[in-house]
Amino acid sequence: MQQKHTPYRHLFEAARYALLSGGKRLRPVLTMFMTEMLGGDVEATLVPACAVEMIHTYSMIHDDLPCMDDDGVRRGKPTLHVVYDEAHAVLTGDFLLTLAFQVISEEKNLTLEQRIQMIQVLSKASAAHGLIGGQVVDLLDGSKNLEDLKHLHLNKTGALFRAAAEIGAIAADATEQERQHIHYFGETLGLAYQVLNDILDVSASQELRGTEVSSDVKNGKVTYVTLLGIEKAQKEFDQLMASCLDILTKLPGDHALLEQYLQNIHS
Amino acid sequence: MQQKHTPYRHLFEAARYALLSGGKRLRPVLTMFMTEMLGGDVEATLVPACAVEMIHTYSMIHDDLPCMDDDGVRRGKPTLHVVYDEAHAVLTGDFLLTLAFQVISEEKNLTLEQRIQMIQVLSKASAAHGLIGGQVVDLLDGSKNLEDLKHLHLNKTGALFRAAAEIGAIAADATEQERQHIHYFGETLGLAYQVLNDILDVSASQELRGTEVSSDVKNGKVTYVTLLGIEKAQKEFDQLMASCLDILTKLPGDHALLEQYLQNIHS
Repeated sequence: MQQKHTPYRHLFEAARYALLSGGKRLRPVLTMFMTEMLGGDVEATLVPACAVEMIHTYSMIHDDLPCMDDDGVRRGKPTLHVVYDEAHAVLTGDFLLTLAFQVISEEKNLTLEQRIQMIQVLSKASAAHGLIGGQVVDLLDGSKNLEDLKHLHLNKTGALFRAAAEIGAIAADATEQERQHIHYFGETLGLAYQVLNDILDVSASQELRGTEVSSDVKNGKVTYVTLLGIEKAQKEFDQLMASCLDILTKLPGDHALLEQYLQNIHS
Repeated sequence: MQQKHTPYRHLFEAARYALLSGGKRLRPVLTMFMTEMLGGDVEATLVPACAVEMIHTYSMIHDDLPCMDDDGVRRGKPTLHVVYDEAHAVLTGDFLLTLAFQVISEEKNLTLEQRIQMIQVLSKASAAHGLIGGQVVDLLDGSKNLEDLKHLHLNKTGALFRAAAEIGAIAADATEQERQHIHYFGETLGLAYQVLNDILDVSASQELRGTEVSSDVKNGKVTYVTLLGIEKAQKEFDQLMASCLDILTKLPGDHALLEQYLQNIHS
């Protein structure tokens, strides 16, 4: 009987490799800080925060596949399809996507209403008008203008930051009006983070990375930097971060943690 | 603005192509017949039944990929990665998997409790100890004995039949004891269906398919027929179907629809 469980262990190993490869955890931390700020039960939000990270990790595993962005390195380590193979990378991504919804649905520290709302927010952010739609547009590429690029990143990056923030708000039973501010906060933060990444892709590859160039640069993709130049891209980032700080002032609670989070997003 | 929606339409087209390619709908029909038999609201079960079919379709899209079973034909039509490309096949599968949980979470004809229970059952059946685990074991293949094969099919095929049946039971607020019988009914039916497929793969490829041989046969996979021979495999199928009919007698309601369903599973 023991032999039979080996394949699952293989799957779990692959999932762990991808999940625990040392990312910044920006999305789950956002979920938990949002709950904390709004006075909710932070412990009850640990599992949904992990679910957000599972969705993020699954989307990276699939985006890195040879048939997509064809990235061989992620966070300084070989990507999953390099370490295992393509089949296991597809399946491990599928597994993490599925598990995200399972763990939220089983979280007994949340009410049924909270669990359903979180699954609604997370599935919407992950589907056609979110992560997956963003990736479809990204694959088409071609000649993009700034509006197209913003639209793309609001889906591909903004949607999951927005979901992360909203899930934190749901755990704290935020009001409808608070939810609207938080929705906009997460979306704006996600966009800012993408602009920052576009800047770091260029500056880091010049200063630090040596031969290791990001796939966007390698594939000649349109970015904020190629469209605006690095100086205007930096200005765009500053404006988006100022908007985030502005939205925070409309929300109750102690903003210190989230202000610190915003300040540290560069590092 | 209209131009921007084109990519989504592309995604929706691909999802429709895969979903509406004329399968037998055995799983969603099982969900609805189960609800009907137990006296539940069949209309409320339409959306979760579709969600089950979305999960089934996603798993076929990903299983057919070149890095998995590498199937070019499904239900007599070119598979999704042949019509579109591999990237769209991965993303369309991801989309259907995500959408399945979204539509259940948004179904207002179901109580919060029913929605959460359905998401629990469906995500569990789709994850490591279900569809995905089954596919991982299938990829490893090698020398399987009958027990290994049964274990594989209980995950890869049995899990989703079991979930389909249980979701129908949840919609009808079945008792815990009824749920246990229905769990076993779905699992046994799924196994029977897999044995039947193994038989048809051989007999249909001889009599009907001409050059079109199933990927299991093509890839020299271990099946019930290669292990038992066609006659004993047929006997195994008959026994499993007899078990299904036997379990039905332990359940309340009018069994006529499900008995008919079992009789027609060959066609």
